[in-house]
Amino acid sequence: MVRTRPLQVALLGCGVVGSQVARLMTTHGADLAARIGAPVELAGVAVRRPDRARGTVDPALVTTDAAGLVSRGDIDIVLELIGGIEPARTLINSAFEHGASVVTANKALLAKDGPALHAAAGKHGADLYFEASVAGAIPLLRPLRESLAGDQVNRVLGIVNGTTNFILDRMASGGTSYGEALQEATALGYAEADPTADVEGFDAAAKAAILAGIAFHTRVGLDDVHREGITEVTAADIASAREMGCAVKLLAICERAADGRSVTARVHPAMIPLGHPLASVGEAYNAVFVEAEAAGRLMFYGAGAGGVPTASAVLGDLVAACRNRLNGGRGPGESAYAALPVSPMGEVVTRYHISLDVSDKPGVLAQCAMVFADHGVSIDTVRQTGKGGDAQLVVVTHRAPDAALGATVDALRRLDTVHDVASIMRVEGE
Amino acid sequence: MVRTRPLQVALLGCGVVGSQVARLMTTHGADLAARIGAPVELAGVAVRRPDRARGTVDPALVTTDAAGLVSRGDIDIVLELIGGIEPARTLINSAFEHGASVVTANKALLAKDGPALHAAAGKHGADLYFEASVAGAIPLLRPLRESLAGDQVNRVLGIVNGTTNFILDRMASGGTSYGEALQEATALGYAEADPTADVEGFDAAAKAAILAGIAFHTRVGLDDVHREGITEVTAADIASAREMGCAVKLLAICERAADGRSVTARVHPAMIPLGHPLASVGEAYNAVFVEAEAAGRLMFYGAGAGGVPTASAVLGDLVAACRNRLNGGRGPGESAYAALPVSPMGEVVTRYHISLDVSDKPGVLAQCAMVFADHGVSIDTVRQTGKGGDAQLVVVTHRAPDAALGATVDALRRLDTVHDVASIMRVEGE
Repeated sequence: MVRTRPLQVALLGCGVVGSQVARLMTTHGADLAARIGAPVELAGVAVRRPDRARGTVDPALVTTDAAGLVSRGDIDIVLELIGGIEPARTLINSAFEHGASVVTANKALLAKDGPALHAAAGKHGADLYFEASVAGAIPLLRPLRESLAGDQVNRVLGIVNGTTNFILDRMASGGTSYGEALQEATALGYAEADPTADVEGFDAAAKAAILAGIAFHTRVGLDDVHREGITEVTAADIASAREMGCAVKLLAICERAADGRSVTARVHPAMIPLGHPLASVGEAYNAVFVEAEAAGRLMFYGAGAGGVPTASAVLGDLVAACRNRLNGGRGPGESAYAALPVSPMGEVVTRYHISLDVSDKPGVLAQCAMVFADHGVSIDTVRQTGKGGDAQLVVVTHRAPDAALGATVDALRRLDTVHDVASIMRVEGE
Repeated sequence: MVRTRPLQVALLGCGVVGSQVARLMTTHGADLAARIGAPVELAGVAVRRPDRARGTVDPALVTTDAAGLVSRGDIDIVLELIGGIEPARTLINSAFEHGASVVTANKALLAKDGPALHAAAGKHGADLYFEASVAGAIPLLRPLRESLAGDQVNRVLGIVNGTTNFILDRMASGGTSYGEALQEATALGYAEADPTADVEGFDAAAKAAILAGIAFHTRVGLDDVHREGITEVTAADIASAREMGCAVKLLAICERAADGRSVTARVHPAMIPLGHPLASVGEAYNAVFVEAEAAGRLMFYGAGAGGVPTASAVLGDLVAACRNRLNGGRGPGESAYAALPVSPMGEVVTRYHISLDVSDKPGVLAQCAMVFADHGVSIDTVRQTGKGGDAQLVVVTHRAPDAALGATVDALRRLDTVHDVASIMRVEGE
């Protein structure tokens, strides 16, 4: 195959990830050319503030006119690394209209507007690749979309946010409070100045929506994802988890119902047994379990964030998009044919670990047990220990619908003998 | 896209994997059609012995004429699940000549003749997919070939043979001998009647050749892979490993030299620290660590063998090949542009754990230490313990070329004071 000019790449955004993409495109240009079958060239780099240092980027390529860059007409691939909804969405749509394929790491935009973006790509015969949007460098979306394309995925269970995993890991290893661990994460650059998107689970929820959509061939929007962050997790919760041989992790969980007719997606802190491979995922690492009908249990582990690892995922997608450009093929588009209903959190079947401060007198345990029974929730284990004048009751349930578990807790709160519901956490990974 | 007839699939071999592929193609036909964009149909199933039960396969499809099936002219995809060199090779080449793409799980053939097969596929504009040839259901080759196509892989370190992992796991957990563990593996169906291919490392070596070729964009043949099996591993080796906080695993290791100018590929038992994620991979599971320049450390874990898991990988490739058929694109072909030299085992830099039975008298330790020094091998730790009239010397070296380590052991054997070199094992994964 002979091409007279290199493939033209427009880079939108030159921050933590973008600057590494630009650097690697330069240092590994010969390798990329050999693997693609034609050279690739940075045609322009759109930034908001051109005065900032851009590392190895040729200043002549830098522009503040992103809209002008993507609509030049000679761009083959647009790498969208700006993030957020706008102007990213408008730029991506313009890229498609002007004949380019797009590689993006924008989980927020994909979770919000994935179907429209895929439709735009399809209309213009372009590719939309987004491996970097979930779990950073870990090859996860391509395996799900392609390697498991002949299988039925029943569950995806993963640690997909490095910031929160770092915080929970520090709380567990150092016995520190949430606040102290967050401070450390901020000081080390793992948490942003405003950590809301991470610690409240918004980032993980966007990833859960993307993962569930791919896994179940069903559109799953952000609003379909039940979301709880880690700000309420206490050192006592983590100590309590350890007592029962568990770690606390912020999990993204996408499940097909047992009858196969509906799916759920959720993000919340959960206890998982220390023997589960996800329990030992430390620091800011990510790991995702995938359970498929034929393939069985698979795990993918690696760096979930960071400029250099995420750049690896972007460049992998760049190579794929460039190859398709040369060979005339197209990567897989949106697959939403199954169109399964997404059930609300109340219908999720899970287990609860509940810690109650109760009056230390006869009959209290029986009274609490009756509340569980009244709601159809079966108790797995119960442990009662003295605690000053009070007693502490730690109950672990069998699997039951989340709504029944929630109603049980509400009813327990109304008992005079229950002074406090000290903690509630779901138990997963068994 | 409107097609008047379903894509035609020829299945060669209907054994452990093939029968599961046929079953899943039937039970999940509607899903496959939706994901591909057109229905797929089994056009024929070639078997050696048509009298054997074939599960859900329509008897009218069964034939003993594999050559006739692949040359019918109307076959879109050939699934080669016969294994071995011939007739698999001839059938695959015939498939390409008759315009079909090929999906295969045949690691032996790929390791032996990969370049010729890729060339044949390229010549006819067909696809050659082979995800199932390494690590069964684990998506590994597609991530390496595509997701990491923009990165530089520096090392692949993995457990890629389930049979030997099962045996070593049993030896470690039960304290049993190699022979007893092999018997158990055979009884449970993990080892074949003739276990040579597994226990002597031939199977893992073929996979190492495939992995190294993909990882380093370099042709690596079977003869380039240093191979040692597990038949010499003793219960004492495993106990000794545990004493130093290690597990013994049969590892496939593909490495780029520190200067980047050459690569190596090898399969041998090695000690790895218990804290390393590969150490806790039990039973017949597989797991592969990939270290890439930008992506960092990645791990892929799952079922490495078995009919159903392997069928998942075959069907994923089938979907990809079918999509390309419809869209006019092609999957990645062979990438061997780097053409790096493959260095012999002697140039591999590794560490040795050596256990010596020596005379229990003054000066022996000094004498042995001098042998290491003479060969330029630096000692990390040495432990001397009484053992009857003799003493036992356990030495762990720092990293050194394998040739120097081997020469050191040879020289130690020649010392009068060294009665026996009780065990030698490499130490990896640090």
